[in-house]
Amino acid sequence: MVDGLKPRPLSGFFLLGVLVPIALWFILRPFLDPVPSVPALYTSSGFSILAFVTTLYLVPALGPRFVQANLKGRDLLKTYSTPIPESQGLVCASVYLLSLILFIPFAFSNVFADRFSSQQKSVHGLAIDEFPHHQLSVYLSSIISLMMATLLGFLDDVFDIRWRHKLPVPIIASIPLLIVYFAERGNTNVVVPKPLRPLIGSLINLGPLYYLYMSLLSTFSTNSINILAGINGSEVLQAIIITISVIVNDLLYLPWPIDWRIPLHLLGNQSEIGSEIRIGGVWSAGMAHGSRVLVERHLFSLYFMLPLLGVCTGFLYHNWYPARAFPGDTLCYLTGMAFAVVGIQAHFSKTLLLFFLPQIFNFLLSCPQLFGLVPCPRHRVPRFDPETNLLHPSTVAFERPPSMRTSSTLHLLSLLGLTRLTKHPKSGQIFEATNLTILNLFLIKLGPMTERQLVKVLGATQVAGSVFAFLIRYGLAGLVYDGDRR
Amino acid sequence: MVDGLKPRPLSGFFLLGVLVPIALWFILRPFLDPVPSVPALYTSSGFSILAFVTTLYLVPALGPRFVQANLKGRDLLKTYSTPIPESQGLVCASVYLLSLILFIPFAFSNVFADRFSSQQKSVHGLAIDEFPHHQLSVYLSSIISLMMATLLGFLDDVFDIRWRHKLPVPIIASIPLLIVYFAERGNTNVVVPKPLRPLIGSLINLGPLYYLYMSLLSTFSTNSINILAGINGSEVLQAIIITISVIVNDLLYLPWPIDWRIPLHLLGNQSEIGSEIRIGGVWSAGMAHGSRVLVERHLFSLYFMLPLLGVCTGFLYHNWYPARAFPGDTLCYLTGMAFAVVGIQAHFSKTLLLFFLPQIFNFLLSCPQLFGLVPCPRHRVPRFDPETNLLHPSTVAFERPPSMRTSSTLHLLSLLGLTRLTKHPKSGQIFEATNLTILNLFLIKLGPMTERQLVKVLGATQVAGSVFAFLIRYGLAGLVYDGDRR
Repeated sequence: MVDGLKPRPLSGFFLLGVLVPIALWFILRPFLDPVPSVPALYTSSGFSILAFVTTLYLVPALGPRFVQANLKGRDLLKTYSTPIPESQGLVCASVYLLSLILFIPFAFSNVFADRFSSQQKSVHGLAIDEFPHHQLSVYLSSIISLMMATLLGFLDDVFDIRWRHKLPVPIIASIPLLIVYFAERGNTNVVVPKPLRPLIGSLINLGPLYYLYMSLLSTFSTNSINILAGINGSEVLQAIIITISVIVNDLLYLPWPIDWRIPLHLLGNQSEIGSEIRIGGVWSAGMAHGSRVLVERHLFSLYFMLPLLGVCTGFLYHNWYPARAFPGDTLCYLTGMAFAVVGIQAHFSKTLLLFFLPQIFNFLLSCPQLFGLVPCPRHRVPRFDPETNLLHPSTVAFERPPSMRTSSTLHLLSLLGLTRLTKHPKSGQIFEATNLTILNLFLIKLGPMTERQLVKVLGATQVAGSVFAFLIRYGLAGLVYDGDRR
Repeated sequence: MVDGLKPRPLSGFFLLGVLVPIALWFILRPFLDPVPSVPALYTSSGFSILAFVTTLYLVPALGPRFVQANLKGRDLLKTYSTPIPESQGLVCASVYLLSLILFIPFAFSNVFADRFSSQQKSVHGLAIDEFPHHQLSVYLSSIISLMMATLLGFLDDVFDIRWRHKLPVPIIASIPLLIVYFAERGNTNVVVPKPLRPLIGSLINLGPLYYLYMSLLSTFSTNSINILAGINGSEVLQAIIITISVIVNDLLYLPWPIDWRIPLHLLGNQSEIGSEIRIGGVWSAGMAHGSRVLVERHLFSLYFMLPLLGVCTGFLYHNWYPARAFPGDTLCYLTGMAFAVVGIQAHFSKTLLLFFLPQIFNFLLSCPQLFGLVPCPRHRVPRFDPETNLLHPSTVAFERPPSMRTSSTLHLLSLLGLTRLTKHPKSGQIFEATNLTILNLFLIKLGPMTERQLVKVLGATQVAGSVFAFLIRYGLAGLVYDGDRR
């Protein structure tokens, strides 16, 4: 084994001596007075830290068993050919699902409610003492969908399903979600953008089309991460940045305990003693517009996103360049389905799609190859040059002259700077074209770079996409939508 | 490939031309007038037939993919060494889980209720128009447990976990069940047998012990099937007979539409015109003692057992001697967890255990080997004699003289006729003992037989056990319990 491929060292002191006590404090905090305004959120944070620590330990510990069971792969972009454990997203999925399940009594039983009723509620605004029980079946159906995604992702890893066949697989995993949505008579209305309202009214009931939309959302979120893959850390880094974006968006809707008061009477306004502007109260209900339903939805989303952040961050430590563990399709299925779950159940699917801008771009760029207009080799990852340790754009070679359609598509893409063609100097016939992925595009635009640099560029792009998404969502959406209810 | 190992032929006419239309009729029947008394039960029966047909087709169709993915095994009790697809219980599990999920809207939405409210209820007694919505989360948590059992069973097949380590695995799968039971404040009371009531009252609250009992039940039902395995068809045949027993027991509690009236006034009793004894009414509420809750519980059980019967029967066709497909641990985990789910959620765990008499006997018989008193070889399946095609009891050989404890245990078992020892003619030292399983015991008692005969003997024993169980349950239980509420 190459020396650099020993499992990365873990700081037992920091993990067990610092993080675990912090996690336990978060879990126990709701049982101490004064009870915080959203007690289950503390528990969820505690579980997420534990999930992080557990994943950090389990991934390297179980690695050899994965290799033994033939779940292993060669790193294509390295000089060595040491087998690396593959499909270890399964470890993440197991830890994630178990923490979601263990969390159930904290969110859905009367553990906290009993304590609340015995003491005066001391928090202003939209303090939520307990998560509504009727949401339990929605929560459970989400777990079932996540579990099906895990199972199907793992089957994909074991049976190596061809990618054309696995495109619709997430639809199967979304069935439990849709069926419970139907059984619970879920809302299938969509708010119409302002310009269209004179034509079709302000609300439109999509009916069965809404279910189609939901199943396509899960297909998109799963596969779009799966096709932006191939270099160390890429899948899980995307997932982490999207997760953080969703978490930030959720936090905007929570009833924060911040309760700043600007005492007006001290500023000379003596007419009304005690008059004050309470920023906490106003801001806490700001994004939620005083809607308890909105707060509940975003809490629901947080309960799924926080532990996901935990397991993904733990996994990234071992998956970072040079990778000691590969995620496999299992991780892409799991994270994609988790995003679909919160987008659907917490009703912010349009905002969610904004966080997928790099994925959407990559998907659109890939379309000519995905749908057969341009030949698609089995791997489209950048080409590794062992001499310089740099990555170069990978190419698809044309043994015979490409058809008219293919070559005009490629010329158009080349004109837009999205691919680089190698042509016969005289006839102009295309010999080679770079593969149509965002990773190759980075290499065309920024020149050859190391794998470590490339994954950082990818991460930076994803962060920039999320910043842009927030600007659109909270800056421009007001032009076409009036409320913030989506 | 041995000619006899081609996939068994399927009658397309019978399956697609007869069974599928029957299944569709069952599914559509509740939408036709008059609406039957338990509409969702028709749908469940229809889905179960479809699950049967689907399994029949999918098992041989997916076999080669399993072999390719290295999920294959040699049949130890055959002359040929053709690789047989292993872990195909995964196919059963997938079909089973999908049919349970697709069934949700029929049981838990208002599909039927709406129709009911629009027409007069025409059925007497405990006609149930809809399954209670509050049961949805219980149903979903059961699916999660079944899915975890499937996932863990499949992981066991892929990673080949040692049996000592996998004994507690079903406890993990039972967590969702227990947590939702807790979150829903499930009943943890147990009815006390009559003789003990003067001491501790008629009901006792077991509290946390009840959860321990439930998790142990799932461990027992899973592992007890898993250790009574090794010959073609044994695992799935046991599962089928237990499933049928549970179904028969459930049917006793349903509100049957049979409505026999004995018109007393025609028999000369003119005093009350119109007086009559209604057997239908009386019998329909007979076992349920007029309790709607009991009917609901047994409906719940049927919704899980009917499709299980479907997939297991479909699988048996391919697993029957000589087997074309092996179930793997996946099937044992799935069926074991399904029995635990219905036993726990429908509150008849004691009755359920009665259906496990052969498994309990086999477990007790195996204890000396499971817990290290007698050495335990990796496989304890009977020994195959290729000359005669007969099975003989397999043995464990003692290279060194066994310890005092081991040899006295073996002598005791031999005295009871449960094992056969080979001893030194003079010193009496034990050279060999037959392995302590019910299969070897059959071979000791009945002499060597073919694998096909042995699995039939096992099946007959299981049927006899269930008949005996019904006698105890409905004959003798009255001596120690007054109600039928367990």
